[in-house]
Amino acid sequence: MEFNKIAIIGVGLIGGSIAMALKERGIRGRITGIGRNRERLKNARDKGIVDEYSTVPSEGVAGADLIILSTPVGRFEGIMEAIKGSIGRGAIVTDVGSVKAGVVERLSSMVPDGVSFVGAHPIAGGESSGFESARPDLFKGALCIITPVTSTEAHAIRVVSELWRAVGADVRYMSPDEHDIVYASVSHLPHVIAYALINAILDRDDILSYGGNGLRDMTRIALSSAELWRDICMYNRENILDAIKGFTSRLSRITEMIEASEWAGLEREFERAREGRRLIEPD
Amino acid sequence: MEFNKIAIIGVGLIGGSIAMALKERGIRGRITGIGRNRERLKNARDKGIVDEYSTVPSEGVAGADLIILSTPVGRFEGIMEAIKGSIGRGAIVTDVGSVKAGVVERLSSMVPDGVSFVGAHPIAGGESSGFESARPDLFKGALCIITPVTSTEAHAIRVVSELWRAVGADVRYMSPDEHDIVYASVSHLPHVIAYALINAILDRDDILSYGGNGLRDMTRIALSSAELWRDICMYNRENILDAIKGFTSRLSRITEMIEASEWAGLEREFERAREGRRLIEPD
Repeated sequence: MEFNKIAIIGVGLIGGSIAMALKERGIRGRITGIGRNRERLKNARDKGIVDEYSTVPSEGVAGADLIILSTPVGRFEGIMEAIKGSIGRGAIVTDVGSVKAGVVERLSSMVPDGVSFVGAHPIAGGESSGFESARPDLFKGALCIITPVTSTEAHAIRVVSELWRAVGADVRYMSPDEHDIVYASVSHLPHVIAYALINAILDRDDILSYGGNGLRDMTRIALSSAELWRDICMYNRENILDAIKGFTSRLSRITEMIEASEWAGLEREFERAREGRRLIEPD
Repeated sequence: MEFNKIAIIGVGLIGGSIAMALKERGIRGRITGIGRNRERLKNARDKGIVDEYSTVPSEGVAGADLIILSTPVGRFEGIMEAIKGSIGRGAIVTDVGSVKAGVVERLSSMVPDGVSFVGAHPIAGGESSGFESARPDLFKGALCIITPVTSTEAHAIRVVSELWRAVGADVRYMSPDEHDIVYASVSHLPHVIAYALINAILDRDDILSYGGNGLRDMTRIALSSAELWRDICMYNRENILDAIKGFTSRLSRITEMIEASEWAGLEREFERAREGRRLIEPD
């Protein structure tokens, strides 16, 4: 895999880790970091994470044959609007956003003729942010969901798949709609719950610090950017509402069992969860 | 601090770690492990975690001046019934249970004259179990909540406090009722939520494995013993129901904002949680 120039828009945890991983793998092509904060970009370049940088997206993407959108998902459209006149023919644009249906539809329609858009979502990163936390092995063993649509060019899908495999990810394919349904349950719902749990505890005096590692592990994702998660809720509104409904129904079931002192049923309910959870990581 | 004999009933993660920590600190007194499985107790002794063992609680506690109940909380009463005739005058009985009000009331009334009961709850351990996971530094820097009542003898409170400080814990005092209110929110509620979340995801086909580290961290406590958590729900029923109500109200608030597309309000709600969460562990 070889590029002339790779433009990474948003040199944070994900963008920075992609750059570091590509360099470590010896992928050819100079890497341009694009962002809003010149000082931070300069630091990223001085650290060798990117080769050059630009605070003007339309200038930064000029001549790039691969453009990776790795800002918060709510900014993709504005960036695409700003760069679309400067993307060279034959270039591939991809993203790392946590929601796909709206993003893929909108961005695919915005790229100029001769340019391909391929949606992707690496399952890595989480609550940390900033290139200071970036590391070349962030994607090793992580899933990366690629979400082609019927109009997506096969060559572009291949290149983006190779890119993610090169940085160590386990590539899977889903339709954008399927992705958004699955991730509403396994990622967006958990974030909403973590925020709600912390707020519920904050409602009860100053007791958060009495929690142990269990609480800290459980609510670590509540450290994630509020802006990003607001946008994810906006983009994946229907599926998230549906996932909340499914969760609320399970929680009501448990609540009713506790109210009715149905202890055998409650133990079965807990045991079902325990067995299910063991499938993804044994205790 | 010096004992003649310390009896630890339940040589699992917590009981085993107490034994290892006491040995590491050079606390005088031989340690007897008491349990139901002779083979496992023998292994614990061969590993040097305990000095001797017994599968007969009433025999194992004979001559002990300190008795630590570290089985699942639902078994305390039966054990106390079995050992109460064999506890020597002047001995101190303590426990490590995650619920306190009912336990302290019941066990305090069961100990014979001249024997003190002091309730305690180290905030450590979590979803792992078995002495194989035990380690001498499990309690280093962890909280241990001691829950005396007016009838608890001052000397016994001092000894149990010293014990926990000796193994590295940060000792705090609460009334049993206060403890149960606080831990309903910061521990019992999170467990109930984790079980409900896993079950809600299991309801949607086979998608659990698509989750990332965020989901794994968030639901790790769903690996905890179903029997133990059934019992905790039983013992702390009212407070847990109240904590679920508080959480449900915060979750409904978020749900209504998503339904009404109140994105600015949603971002504030998430930001409040994020700021609160940062107080216990910065991002």
